[in-house]
Amino acid sequence: MIRIGIDMMGGDFAPAEAVKGSIEFIKEQENGEIHLVMIGDEPSIRKHLEQAHIPPGSFSIVHASETIEMHEHPTKALKEKQHSSIAIGFHLLSAGKTDAFISAGNTGAMMVGALFSIKTIEGVSRPTIGAYLPREDGSLGLLVDVGLNADCKPENLNQFAVLGSLFAEHVLKINSPRVGLINLGEEEGKGNLLAQGAFPLLKENSRLNFIGNIEGRDILLDKADVCVCDGFTGNVVLKLAESIYDIVQRRQIKDEHFERFNFEVYGGVPVLGVSKPVIIGHGISHSIAFRNMIRIACTMLETDLTRRIEKAFAV
Amino acid sequence: MIRIGIDMMGGDFAPAEAVKGSIEFIKEQENGEIHLVMIGDEPSIRKHLEQAHIPPGSFSIVHASETIEMHEHPTKALKEKQHSSIAIGFHLLSAGKTDAFISAGNTGAMMVGALFSIKTIEGVSRPTIGAYLPREDGSLGLLVDVGLNADCKPENLNQFAVLGSLFAEHVLKINSPRVGLINLGEEEGKGNLLAQGAFPLLKENSRLNFIGNIEGRDILLDKADVCVCDGFTGNVVLKLAESIYDIVQRRQIKDEHFERFNFEVYGGVPVLGVSKPVIIGHGISHSIAFRNMIRIACTMLETDLTRRIEKAFAV
Repeated sequence: MIRIGIDMMGGDFAPAEAVKGSIEFIKEQENGEIHLVMIGDEPSIRKHLEQAHIPPGSFSIVHASETIEMHEHPTKALKEKQHSSIAIGFHLLSAGKTDAFISAGNTGAMMVGALFSIKTIEGVSRPTIGAYLPREDGSLGLLVDVGLNADCKPENLNQFAVLGSLFAEHVLKINSPRVGLINLGEEEGKGNLLAQGAFPLLKENSRLNFIGNIEGRDILLDKADVCVCDGFTGNVVLKLAESIYDIVQRRQIKDEHFERFNFEVYGGVPVLGVSKPVIIGHGISHSIAFRNMIRIACTMLETDLTRRIEKAFAV
Repeated sequence: MIRIGIDMMGGDFAPAEAVKGSIEFIKEQENGEIHLVMIGDEPSIRKHLEQAHIPPGSFSIVHASETIEMHEHPTKALKEKQHSSIAIGFHLLSAGKTDAFISAGNTGAMMVGALFSIKTIEGVSRPTIGAYLPREDGSLGLLVDVGLNADCKPENLNQFAVLGSLFAEHVLKINSPRVGLINLGEEEGKGNLLAQGAFPLLKENSRLNFIGNIEGRDILLDKADVCVCDGFTGNVVLKLAESIYDIVQRRQIKDEHFERFNFEVYGGVPVLGVSKPVIIGHGISHSIAFRNMIRIACTMLETDLTRRIEKAFAV
């Protein structure tokens, strides 16, 4: 039995959309192997579950009397609000009472929780967080890091590439994912000191299908499956890509491909490099986002991604 | 009399489009105060000028027997090809025989020429190169640096902000341009070490209308008039924005705003911080790009931008 912990109080539409997404997931389940652990204000969750008609064994509720708000200071809030849904979520995860934890709540608190409540996989210097890249053929690529690590060393980028490749291979189902180093030119030797230092590491890394440098213009195309950069660059790139959707919407352009720039629907991608699946969602997550996050957590558990990462980093 | 030097051999469609753009510019001139110095293969230029019917006094031709190709190593090519249009262009500029120099040729050679053939303005540690940002209201913003300085110190960003502001004010005609620091979060204190270090410098700089941090999602919107970042980030952002136009074209989306993501038409923006106007154009420049570059050079000269920059950096 796989048990997925979900913070029902996270996101702008809590708990309604979290409940809705959970119900949708449970209903599409065929064999009922997944058990959802809904963490949050029990009366409120029960009220939203009332009309749902889902099997009672498919979920349980763990009451949390507090909520960490979006604007709160992550470390302080996590420390002071021990009865918050995020604190309880990490407590259950680290105690082995759940196998994964999902939240669309305070991103900082989720990151702090992921880094300090559960272990970082041995050999991983810095866990990373990525984002999906919609591509014209309908597939998804991965951009790592998108903000967890603003300042990086070349070796960090090398590790992000390995973590991203394993995620792309097993969760996105891309065979031998092509890794590109985001840079300001294509030729080897180009770049800032970080990119110049990372290039030879990526090139010599036998775990990677490294295709060399990629430029800004290649990120949204199908050139690399895993686009690697520091978290500062990745964050700017991700938010710029997100803004394209807003512009397209405002200009009333209807286009299937640009619809997929609505990053909300993807829900979120996992923190990679920690010992258990943790997925941090977009603040404005709707039910589809929650459903997708639960699916991703399941895929990570079913494909044993964490063990594969451990193996890759074991010397 | 203002004399603008133009490398007629630079760009993918040389010299045809350079000649066409020059003719267009001359024809729209009312008072004939601008004299164009066309540098390149004389017979070829003359051939393209044959049907033009432009006043003989509006231009002159300086023959260049060599051309630096796009793929050539910048420093080596500039040194070895003393009779190339770029080498002659910088020679004329530094000798005071022209007042500005424009080329859509080898970017690296143009940068090397701008940095070493003419002087950097006293007080400017690192000249910078920017790019226009199309905005939904039809106006243009500026992104600096877009690749000249891959690794920066906080003080460099502070200087890019001053250079960009002066350009925005005098050439883009934006009154008291708002300067935003590209960062991964809005709050002061966020960012990588560079952004954290640059923030207080920008905040305390009385020459700037600093509005604080801006995120990736703000770059294409009308939040700041001058978006400041290191050249690595700026290069990735610019090329990503360029690729949006390609995707929009491929998907046959017709939209006035996205049409303006066709960065080719802007021609190029000047190297800021050097003692004379130097404009580096896009390799695939057509006549409209050349005409625009000549116009920008004229505006820079007419508004005395270089003297204003000198004054701003004089202690």
